[in-house]
Amino acid sequence: MRSAWLLPEHIADVLPAQAQRIEALRRCLLDRARSYGYELVIPPLLEHLDALLSGTGHELDLSTFKLVDQLSGQMLGLRADTTPQAARIDAHLLNRQGITRLCYCGPVLHTRPTGLAATREPLQFGAEIFGHEGLEADLEVAELALDCLRAARVPRLVIDLADARVLRGVLAGVPMDAEGLQDVARALSSKDAPALAALCSGLPAETRAALQSLLRLYGGVEVLAAARDLLPDRPLIRSALDQLGWLGGRLQAADASLRVAFDLSDMSGYAYYSGVRFGIFAAGCSDTLARGGRYDEVGAVFGRSRPAVGFSLDLKSLSEVTPPAAPVSAVLAPWGDDPALLAAVQALRTGGDVVVCTLPGSRAGSTEEAAAWRADRELVQHEGAWCVRPLKTLSTH
Amino acid sequence: MRSAWLLPEHIADVLPAQAQRIEALRRCLLDRARSYGYELVIPPLLEHLDALLSGTGHELDLSTFKLVDQLSGQMLGLRADTTPQAARIDAHLLNRQGITRLCYCGPVLHTRPTGLAATREPLQFGAEIFGHEGLEADLEVAELALDCLRAARVPRLVIDLADARVLRGVLAGVPMDAEGLQDVARALSSKDAPALAALCSGLPAETRAALQSLLRLYGGVEVLAAARDLLPDRPLIRSALDQLGWLGGRLQAADASLRVAFDLSDMSGYAYYSGVRFGIFAAGCSDTLARGGRYDEVGAVFGRSRPAVGFSLDLKSLSEVTPPAAPVSAVLAPWGDDPALLAAVQALRTGGDVVVCTLPGSRAGSTEEAAAWRADRELVQHEGAWCVRPLKTLSTH
Repeated sequence: MRSAWLLPEHIADVLPAQAQRIEALRRCLLDRARSYGYELVIPPLLEHLDALLSGTGHELDLSTFKLVDQLSGQMLGLRADTTPQAARIDAHLLNRQGITRLCYCGPVLHTRPTGLAATREPLQFGAEIFGHEGLEADLEVAELALDCLRAARVPRLVIDLADARVLRGVLAGVPMDAEGLQDVARALSSKDAPALAALCSGLPAETRAALQSLLRLYGGVEVLAAARDLLPDRPLIRSALDQLGWLGGRLQAADASLRVAFDLSDMSGYAYYSGVRFGIFAAGCSDTLARGGRYDEVGAVFGRSRPAVGFSLDLKSLSEVTPPAAPVSAVLAPWGDDPALLAAVQALRTGGDVVVCTLPGSRAGSTEEAAAWRADRELVQHEGAWCVRPLKTLSTH
Repeated sequence: MRSAWLLPEHIADVLPAQAQRIEALRRCLLDRARSYGYELVIPPLLEHLDALLSGTGHELDLSTFKLVDQLSGQMLGLRADTTPQAARIDAHLLNRQGITRLCYCGPVLHTRPTGLAATREPLQFGAEIFGHEGLEADLEVAELALDCLRAARVPRLVIDLADARVLRGVLAGVPMDAEGLQDVARALSSKDAPALAALCSGLPAETRAALQSLLRLYGGVEVLAAARDLLPDRPLIRSALDQLGWLGGRLQAADASLRVAFDLSDMSGYAYYSGVRFGIFAAGCSDTLARGGRYDEVGAVFGRSRPAVGFSLDLKSLSEVTPPAAPVSAVLAPWGDDPALLAAVQALRTGGDVVVCTLPGSRAGSTEEAAAWRADRELVQHEGAWCVRPLKTLSTH
C-alpha cells in the first residue's frame, strides 16, 4: 500500500534550503522586472477552460488539468502557462491605449512532465510587454531575461535566436494541411533529416532543398549570411533574417561575453510565436532556463489583438543551477518573561536578525538541525543587561 | 454567451496596485517569520487526496477540488489548506528530534467560497511550530501572528481566545454521537440558544445548564472567573481555563493596547484543534484576519504524531484592510543605443530605481497609465552627460 506521505510522480516538496534560494531568486527577479517598469499582476490558478486555452494550441490543452466547477457546472482549467492570462489582463482589464508592461510569479500545473526530471508544478516567473510593434520591445524583453539570469548568477549565458517566419516563408504557396505542417516542424526541431526527406517527397525541389538546408543553419552570426544564400529570397524570410541580425547584434554589443547563436530549424512553440523567439541557457547545459518571443495574436480572443513580447522561466529549475545561499547566522535567546529580554529579542529581530527562542525543556543543540539558519551567537545577561556574544559550541568536531 | 474574459465566480485577477501591496506584505510577513527562526517550505499544490485530507475532517474534504492523475490513475486533490502539508513535512521529510519551525506562503483553492465576498483562491501565509508540548509554543505562535498583523499596520488588534476542551469537559461522560456533537458545536458557534436547548433536552440538568452558560461566556478576562463558577469543576475544564488565563495574561502584558477577549462557545475548527485556539481581527471588523491554535494530532497519519501549534492568514484579505502603498517614483529614459545612456539606465536600476524606456513611436504620456509607478523624473543629456531631472508635466490639471 502507498504510504500517506508519498507524493504523486513529478511532484515534490521544496524543503528549507532550496525554498530559501527560490525565495531569494523570486525577490531578485521581481525587483529586476520592476526596475524596468513591469507591473506585477497575480492572475488566478483556475479559469474557465476555454479562456485559458484560447489561441494557445493543442499542446497546452493536453498539459492542462481540467475539473468541473460545482458552483456553475462549467469546465475549469488549472493554468499550465501564465502568458495567456497576462494577455487577457492587458486586453480586457487594463485596456490601456499605450504600452503596458506586466510581470507575474506563481505556480503552474502540468498534467504530464515535460522531461524525465521535470516537475509538474513549475514556479513560473515571467514578464510581458504589450502594445509595441517595433523590435525595441523584443530587445527589451530579451535584455530583461538576460539581466534576470545574470542577477541569478548563472554563469556563461548563451542565447539562441530563432524565427518561425523563416519556415512560413519557405512554405509560402505550398499546399500543406495543419497536420503536415506540424510534422515538418517536429522533424526540423528534432533535426531528423530522414523524416524530413520523407515528409517533403511531394514538394517542389526548391522547397525541399530549402527545408533540408534549414537543418544545417545553426551557429553564430555567419548562419544569417548562409541563410540568405541557401533560402529563397522572399520578403517574409528577408525580414525575419534582418530582425534576427539586428537583435543578435544589439545583444552582443551590450554584452561581449554573451554567446549569441541562431537556430533556423528550432520550431518549438511554432504555433504560438509570431516573430523572433529566444531560448537562454548556460553553456554546457542542455536545459533551456528561459524562453520568450513575440506572440502578437494571443490577445485576439479577448477582443483586442495587441502586439506582445514576453519571456518566462521556472524558478525551481533556475534555483538548481545557481550557487546555493549560505545559511543565515542566527542568535539563540533563552525563553523568559523579563521585559528587558523581550525588548532585546524584539530589537534584534526588527534589525533583521534571526532570533530563535530556546523553549523550556527542549534539548540543547536541537535547534542545530535547522537548514535555513545556523546559530552562531546567543543572547545572555551580563551585569544586568542583555547582550549578544558568540555561541560556545557544545561539541568540538 | 459568456465572454472569454469572464472569470469563474469568486475567482479574480489581482491587478497591479493590489498585487504590489500583496507582494510587499508577503515579504514583510515572511521576513517576520524568518526573524523568529521559522524556515520556509514550499509544499506542492497537488497531492494524493488521502494524504491531503487525512485527519482533517469533513469540512476540508468538501472544500477540496479533486481530479484524476493521468500518470497513475489515482485521485489527487488541490490543497485547500497548507497546514496538513507542513505537518507531513515535519513528520516524514525532516524527521528531526528537536523543535522544528516552518512557514509557508502560497495559494490554496476552495470548491466553495467561505462567505459572500470570499475568494476561492486565498493566498495563504502561515507558520507552524512542531515538537513542543508546553504553552510557550502557543504563546510564540500567537505573538508571531500579532507581530505579522502589526507589521502589516492593521490598527486596533483584538485577539479572541477559545478552547474546545471546555466543551469536551462539559460533555465528558455524556453519551453523544459524532453528528449530535457537531450539531451542538454548531449551535454554540452561532450562539443559537433555542437550537441548543432543543439539542440538549435529553441531557442531564447540570450539562444543560453548563452548555447554556457557555453562550454567555464571552468577554474580557472576567469570563474565566465566571466560567469557574458556572461550569462543572473537572480537570479538563480547569486546565483549559488555566491555560487561557496564562496565555491571555502574557499577551496582554506584552502589548497593553491589544484587546484580549475570551469566547468559550466559539467552536470553529472543533474537530481539528486540540488545545487553545485563537482568532485575530481589527476592532470593528467582523472578519477574522488570522486563525491559529494547537492541533497535536494532525501528523499522526504520517507515522509521527508531534505536538503542533500554528496559525495562518489570507494575504489577499489582509491587503484589503491595510493602508495602500503609494505608487513608486519612476524615471523616464529615452530609447537609444548610446552606450553612455545604457550605462546610466543600468546604474539607476541597479541602485533600486524604476527606469522606464520610452519605446520609439509610443504616445507621449502613455506611460502615465501605470498603476504601480508614477514617472516624476527623466533621464536627459546635458552638456554631453546623462543626468536625471524632474519631469516637466505635459498637462496642468
